[in-house]
Amino acid sequence: MALLADLPRNEDGIATALAVLTQAYGPRVETGQSLREQHGHTTTWLRNQPPDAVIFPQSTEEVQDIVRICATHRVPIIPFGTGTSLEGHVNAPAGGISLDFSQMDAILAVHAEDMDVVIQPGVTRKALNTHLRDTGLFFPIDPGADASLGGMAATRASGTCAVRYGTMKDNVLALKAVLPSGEVVNTAARARKTSAGYDLTRLMVGSEGTLGLITELTLKLQGIPEATSAATCSFPTVEDACNAVIACFQYGVPVARIELLNALQVRACNSYSKLTLPETPLLLLEFHGSDTGVTEQAEAFGELAADHGGTGFTFTTREEDRTRLWQARHDAYWAALQLRPGAQGISTDVCVPLSRLADCVAQTEAKLAELDLKAPIVGHVGDGNFHTLLLVDMENPSEIARAEGYVGWLADLAISMDGTCTGEHGIGQGKAKYLERELGAGAMAMMAAIKRGIDPDNIFNPGKMNL
Amino acid sequence: MALLADLPRNEDGIATALAVLTQAYGPRVETGQSLREQHGHTTTWLRNQPPDAVIFPQSTEEVQDIVRICATHRVPIIPFGTGTSLEGHVNAPAGGISLDFSQMDAILAVHAEDMDVVIQPGVTRKALNTHLRDTGLFFPIDPGADASLGGMAATRASGTCAVRYGTMKDNVLALKAVLPSGEVVNTAARARKTSAGYDLTRLMVGSEGTLGLITELTLKLQGIPEATSAATCSFPTVEDACNAVIACFQYGVPVARIELLNALQVRACNSYSKLTLPETPLLLLEFHGSDTGVTEQAEAFGELAADHGGTGFTFTTREEDRTRLWQARHDAYWAALQLRPGAQGISTDVCVPLSRLADCVAQTEAKLAELDLKAPIVGHVGDGNFHTLLLVDMENPSEIARAEGYVGWLADLAISMDGTCTGEHGIGQGKAKYLERELGAGAMAMMAAIKRGIDPDNIFNPGKMNL
Repeated sequence: MALLADLPRNEDGIATALAVLTQAYGPRVETGQSLREQHGHTTTWLRNQPPDAVIFPQSTEEVQDIVRICATHRVPIIPFGTGTSLEGHVNAPAGGISLDFSQMDAILAVHAEDMDVVIQPGVTRKALNTHLRDTGLFFPIDPGADASLGGMAATRASGTCAVRYGTMKDNVLALKAVLPSGEVVNTAARARKTSAGYDLTRLMVGSEGTLGLITELTLKLQGIPEATSAATCSFPTVEDACNAVIACFQYGVPVARIELLNALQVRACNSYSKLTLPETPLLLLEFHGSDTGVTEQAEAFGELAADHGGTGFTFTTREEDRTRLWQARHDAYWAALQLRPGAQGISTDVCVPLSRLADCVAQTEAKLAELDLKAPIVGHVGDGNFHTLLLVDMENPSEIARAEGYVGWLADLAISMDGTCTGEHGIGQGKAKYLERELGAGAMAMMAAIKRGIDPDNIFNPGKMNL
Repeated sequence: MALLADLPRNEDGIATALAVLTQAYGPRVETGQSLREQHGHTTTWLRNQPPDAVIFPQSTEEVQDIVRICATHRVPIIPFGTGTSLEGHVNAPAGGISLDFSQMDAILAVHAEDMDVVIQPGVTRKALNTHLRDTGLFFPIDPGADASLGGMAATRASGTCAVRYGTMKDNVLALKAVLPSGEVVNTAARARKTSAGYDLTRLMVGSEGTLGLITELTLKLQGIPEATSAATCSFPTVEDACNAVIACFQYGVPVARIELLNALQVRACNSYSKLTLPETPLLLLEFHGSDTGVTEQAEAFGELAADHGGTGFTFTTREEDRTRLWQARHDAYWAALQLRPGAQGISTDVCVPLSRLADCVAQTEAKLAELDLKAPIVGHVGDGNFHTLLLVDMENPSEIARAEGYVGWLADLAISMDGTCTGEHGIGQGKAKYLERELGAGAMAMMAAIKRGIDPDNIFNPGKMNL
């Protein structure tokens, strides 16, 4: 928590900018304490550092105006989507203005023939898919929370479908952003591919609000598959399950989702959802394709699974049965919390090369036992990415200290396996101390040079990413 | 050609750096005129601007050393792979040192379970696939030329398989690069996905040697598909062909390649390859998947094609028949040149949203007729990307002027359709004047800020991308 010290505040600048903004935007500038706290970090264990005010812009032009006012007075701006990020991205360690995009939630254009959509950043992924429901198209990135798409782009979110459809980096075609100078950048044309200049789209995706404020996004869409099948299979060990996954990819079976639950998580799901699954590692899969394709794919996986000790392989293409088969996964988060009611859930998200995943999970389980920490494991195993949900008694300082030690240990383990401390949650404040260990001094220097070049006064989301 | 003026030369610096480099690297520094000219631009119509010397490093450490020597004396460095780029990327308008990566061509590690490979930048794509042939894996990006993978990354290359496997931006997992400071950057871990910091990998991919010198690449591999099918179908108009392609995507048929030949190109192929294809627009397709899958996919396309006026639909899964079916595409470049022996072929590569492609091609054909220019069209139609191969008599100044006017007209047309002036060849010198028209002043300012932050003395590939 040492990293969550407050940063120096520019009190005069903040007061002046707030006065100017209030004059210009009246009731759309809010300073009530509960709203400000809700716009600081509210998930997991990082301390809440509320902004001085929250402002609700309604257009790119208003964002430009607000940025110019704040830049003139060197006041921090922190972009805010739905506040579901997990690593303190929306905290205001130096104070400043939280820029809430919830009033910029228009869907500007659906290009069905081009399979893309142009939206404002405040649109949430569920709202987008509801809007698209009659087009035969959908947006495939599902990080769990009904996050805003601007926030998902800013943190390079992914989730269960990434193994098939990629992460936000693969699904943002272009975006519009306001720079600290107040200038608007259009990062790319709407063409499917381009070799025109630096890849500013990908630079903005995952930059966590430190380089620009995203005010418009062009997203790739997918056709809703003709058919979907679901499958589950139990394995004696995590290693067997991982070997089945590796075989599956090498054989070219195009999985749409492939999720791992460890034995503790299966036990939690059995208890919470009244299931009778064998309490050993479980894989849950989904396949998207044609009617015959999804059956063929599920069956191909079944054979590969059997080669690696899989038992109880079950698959279905019927929607109601799919939901039942996947129930353990759908309920996993709530089931895990129920293992220890009242505890705070803290989610890690390391990601390692697939060949190292079984070893990484095995070492993790052993470490958790050694530290007497309770933390079921759910993994986006196709990407080598897994979550341990630490169930921490926040009244117990020694347990908190052990949990913090574990998080650092796990980051180092993943890094030692040529993996990353964060597969999908981002760096923010919580992972800042691991970034240089992972990428080294050269990458940090390059990121700092980019940040300095674009935001020399460090007014965009200061105190994040060690920048 | 006005853009190809020479830039000011730092004569003293170049002389001093050359002396230091020659002392350190002896025979691996070469200054013979023909080698220097071969390391300047040699494709298409851009003027050759040779470097002052060519150096052949053998390790990242040597690249660092060379960069430090050149940086001390403010001498330009231009990275060189195989010299197959088309937009003057390897020219030395301010003189300086061409850094030829051909002696850094080691394959450092094949991780079959992780389906990735770690290589030095001088490995060519064909050499890589030859090395991989017994692993069941392959690298799918095929830009035509047997380019080096470092060069392909630097120019964000793609080609016929991009519709299925993406471009270089999607297939580089991580890379190592030497910055103008001499520092080494590792852009990412080897994990399949990451949210750790700025996406330096994607920033380097497509940066055309202006930010860093790539000395190592980690590339994603694909499993060789169990089966492949090929199909061809003729259409009354380009619009009908494009509508069939749109239907194909919306229906979710997973094509691996989908190429368009316009009527003139088909005529050229009939003549060159002794074929008897109807001289109307032709689509050629390839599908990758399971035995039953690739048949099902080809048949599904056949039905969609018939709905859009397609005739003569033919498909096969047998390898020898696939080659025959695709012969027109394989021979397209040589067949086109044969339309006008002795002419210089100049390839454009605009890319537009798919819904605009038919209109873009139709206007292009009309413009070519109006200007009395001969230029068959081949398109990576799944991406909205197409090439016109201008066949220009380089002895005829008026024709050259018309061709140059046409290239600018086409770039503007694509940009007006929310497309790009370059889908896969890059900006270099040849497209520099279109970049700002396409992306606007904000994006140019952001690129310039990045460039200044990382290469303040502008020694890495100066005079490219308008930076």
